[in-house]
Amino acid sequence: MKTEKKVILTADRPSGNLHIGHFAGSLQNRVRLQATGEFEMFVMIADLQALTDHANDVQKVTTSVEELMLDYLAVGLDPKKIHFVLQSALPALYELPMFYANLVTQARLERNPTVKNEIKTKGYRREVPVGFVNYPISQAADITAFGASLVPVGADQAPMLEQTREIVATFNRLYGETLVMPEALIPEHARGRLVGIDGAGKMSKSLGNCIYLKDSEEELKRKINSMYTDPNHIKVSDPGKVEGNVVFMYLDAFYADKKHLMDLKAQYRQGGLGDVVLKKILFECLNGILAPMRERRAYYEQHMDEVRGYLRAGTKRAREVTDKVLANVKSAMGIYQL
Amino acid sequence: MKTEKKVILTADRPSGNLHIGHFAGSLQNRVRLQATGEFEMFVMIADLQALTDHANDVQKVTTSVEELMLDYLAVGLDPKKIHFVLQSALPALYELPMFYANLVTQARLERNPTVKNEIKTKGYRREVPVGFVNYPISQAADITAFGASLVPVGADQAPMLEQTREIVATFNRLYGETLVMPEALIPEHARGRLVGIDGAGKMSKSLGNCIYLKDSEEELKRKINSMYTDPNHIKVSDPGKVEGNVVFMYLDAFYADKKHLMDLKAQYRQGGLGDVVLKKILFECLNGILAPMRERRAYYEQHMDEVRGYLRAGTKRAREVTDKVLANVKSAMGIYQL
Repeated sequence: MKTEKKVILTADRPSGNLHIGHFAGSLQNRVRLQATGEFEMFVMIADLQALTDHANDVQKVTTSVEELMLDYLAVGLDPKKIHFVLQSALPALYELPMFYANLVTQARLERNPTVKNEIKTKGYRREVPVGFVNYPISQAADITAFGASLVPVGADQAPMLEQTREIVATFNRLYGETLVMPEALIPEHARGRLVGIDGAGKMSKSLGNCIYLKDSEEELKRKINSMYTDPNHIKVSDPGKVEGNVVFMYLDAFYADKKHLMDLKAQYRQGGLGDVVLKKILFECLNGILAPMRERRAYYEQHMDEVRGYLRAGTKRAREVTDKVLANVKSAMGIYQL
Repeated sequence: MKTEKKVILTADRPSGNLHIGHFAGSLQNRVRLQATGEFEMFVMIADLQALTDHANDVQKVTTSVEELMLDYLAVGLDPKKIHFVLQSALPALYELPMFYANLVTQARLERNPTVKNEIKTKGYRREVPVGFVNYPISQAADITAFGASLVPVGADQAPMLEQTREIVATFNRLYGETLVMPEALIPEHARGRLVGIDGAGKMSKSLGNCIYLKDSEEELKRKINSMYTDPNHIKVSDPGKVEGNVVFMYLDAFYADKKHLMDLKAQYRQGGLGDVVLKKILFECLNGILAPMRERRAYYEQHMDEVRGYLRAGTKRAREVTDKVLANVKSAMGIYQL
């Protein structure tokens, strides 16, 4: 891999396994991007970020690191094409935030809507950990340390990238052109976050309404059978509602044959398509996606040394890249050199 | 030097030269402590801390690093007895704050009276840089990274140490006994901060009312002559006021013969002791302190390689100590090891 390629950075917090919401929202897109061969791609396991709200449960973060690697490999991310990176192993990701924190005011930091919103969601109020509030600065360090020019983001992550762009602009203005200005890369088929199997909210580890990439056939079947459809659709011959019907939301997200899906919706609305048949179609669809993942996962679970080797190799490459940026930053600022 | 000795850490911000207020408040005490041979002493040039309010003037920080070394050596700090350390060269001092920031709430941080007060003094309000607000966390990293059990502090620094003690207590409770709990070491002859030559406020680089350790005889004479005494003490025979008289404040701080000083005060109050004579006494007193410093400084200014060598050697020793603490911290927390 040559460094002249544009760099793409993506990351996930190691705080549990990945689910099909992650697949639809982000992982599928990464598989697409790796296939182009146009980019140097880093996929980072953001354990430092996970620690900002898991100081009381470091164990969960640590055990999730290898689980995340298994999820990545299972989903088809290719260690020949992607560098897998452990955030906490990179000195630059601790050092750059210290410099960037002097370029951001406390008021600006607290205006960040993503952070504001997450603080509210978690019910932190003023008892929020400093590390959690500061995370946008740390994220600016992540993005700039890799010289990432492209950052795939969901719409809700856009303000985070805005904070990074401000830091880059301020740094380059004060100390000379040093950092790469990153752009948001919004996936072509971007859609809102996938709803959970309970239909009540977004799919989220903490809400316990997820279909995990590692779920067995039985778990998948059970979860699909528990899905909410249309409470007034009692007999097969009854007309049913498609809107708000969780099974159809999932088919919208994952069913490849869009024409057939239109036919199914028409039939369901008219009456004559039963939930049992409909759920079987969704099961076949999702199982078709998850079965090859289970197979790859089974292989790697038996080859954990290989898995750890990929993480070490990717982190080594990341160390080269990020150490160089850190050295450039210190030299541009004019930090005293011993 | 053996590591079983108790560790003492002191530090200064490189943002200009040291003045006789620093000498009275801290440096003199360090010279005393080094003479006991009881401690492993680190004296740190806190360039990272100086950057928290000098992002626009890094040059000043960088050039002050060697100036500070010259001040230290001039004052008699002995490189055979003290490790001189450059803060920005120690990875642990960037990494530990990232972990500690998750153990402190934003509300607690902003309650810190030292920070509150400095924010007010500098007129920052909400436009304060995040790095400046976060400094107590960074300071906890400094103190704990060296395993310092003793931290010489002025009274106004006590709340800063309190924040460190809280972080140590929380860390050890969550992750097991790992960090050394530091104690404040208040100098025996502790007094308030020295007043500036204008008598209007404390001696402070930013107020331009300092006598610097490196001042020449001429500069010293000029500054003493400009000192405020008693505006009603016009003729030598007039009775004069000792209270609020800047010259007497300095004699209180520096004149060794306390009995003679009492006589001088009595004579001044009565009338018959002129300001010219009094100022000459202060000049002899201060010049007696500064003259050997100028001599040592002159030597080292001609031997800058030696000076830089001391900073490198001290920082190398500090690297050993702080890297070990960082490794202990990561292992105690259970951070994933590649």
